Amino acid sequence: MKAPIDFFFEFASPYGYLASLRIDSIAAAYEREVVWRPIMLGAAFKASGSVPNAQAPLRGPYFFHDVPRSARLMDAPLVMPPTVPMNSLAASRTYWWLFDSDQDIARGFAQALFQAHWGEGRDMSTVDQVLEVAGTFGISADELRATLADPGVKQRLKDETDRAIGAGVFGSPFVIVDGEPFWGADRLDQVERWLATGGW
Amino acid sequence: MKAPIDFFFEFASPYGYLASLRIDSIAAAYEREVVWRPIMLGAAFKASGSVPNAQAPLRGPYFFHDVPRSARLMDAPLVMPPTVPMNSLAASRTYWWLFDSDQDIARGFAQALFQAHWGEGRDMSTVDQVLEVAGTFGISADELRATLADPGVKQRLKDETDRAIGAGVFGSPFVIVDGEPFWGADRLDQVERWLATGGW
Repeated sequence: MKAPIDFFFEFASPYGYLASLRIDSIAAAYEREVVWRPIMLGAAFKASGSVPNAQAPLRGPYFFHDVPRSARLMDAPLVMPPTVPMNSLAASRTYWWLFDSDQDIARGFAQALFQAHWGEGRDMSTVDQVLEVAGTFGISADELRATLADPGVKQRLKDETDRAIGAGVFGSPFVIVDGEPFWGADRLDQVERWLATGGW
Repeated sequence: MKAPIDFFFEFASPYGYLASLRIDSIAAAYEREVVWRPIMLGAAFKASGSVPNAQAPLRGPYFFHDVPRSARLMDAPLVMPPTVPMNSLAASRTYWWLFDSDQDIARGFAQALFQAHWGEGRDMSTVDQVLEVAGTFGISADELRATLADPGVKQRLKDETDRAIGAGVFGSPFVIVDGEPFWGADRLDQVERWLATGGW
């Protein structure tokens, strides 16, 4: 069994969402596992001197045009959320807390969070909003609030983000296959080819 | 006859070079002309708050890895030049000067310039270096020096760059098909599909 593929993403990134719809099936075709790794993209942007597309002159208008166009091309549901980029701290911390007990539940939560935020255009910045998704996985309001107040849970996300930046991650999505880095939803065809051929 | 496709690029951009190897054949399959439009990407970066990939932490190392990998995937010749990004002022001014008398010669010059810089890794920043390419099109040293000292020639490139920024261009390559903008060499498949289908 080969090593799993690392799939780094930011919940507030629509290209991360679009890639999340394809990455597992691409990997499965080559009998590879995928580890989903949400990070705080803001920290990676700070490290690489980038700013969010949505807020940049010229790039902003293109972004709001390219994202829906890319979604339509994939037949992926997409409704632009009210706040772009949203604050994904609560969502990402919840993910890593779930991950440490059950990776499958954590992935199901990530998919549901992406669907709510990008598929349905719902803001997912607050604990109450994240609870709308987490609740469907049997997590209670009290449990989620206690979890998100836990310094260890906060540190977990910080550590994962630092580790990602240390591995060269600066955007979302960012896929690493056997040490080979691929940035962007538009690199998934290359990821697939890399898996098929072992590189070129 | 439909309107031509606008192909904006920066000579110092390797993704512009890679796109230049495909754009004409993609357009020709749909009986469309392409107007090649070199710009000063630095001005567009200033307008959009971007910095060159090569100089950015994290993005720089990825860039120097992704560019050769993308070239190998296309079987395109690529030798990393000594200075990235080079100063493309002389090359771009020469292009627009040629363009105003003969678009085909201008395109031939652009292709030869790209080949020298990215295909063979030769710096093309100075007038003498540009002359190595321009000379093969029958342009003499005296003629090129006089041209590049002409304020009208300098203004021509500035006007083209301003017009591109006004049309929303912020990166290289940047293709506009019937008003529809596509940024990046990795959007050429979408350009082709747009030409084939008229949009989605």
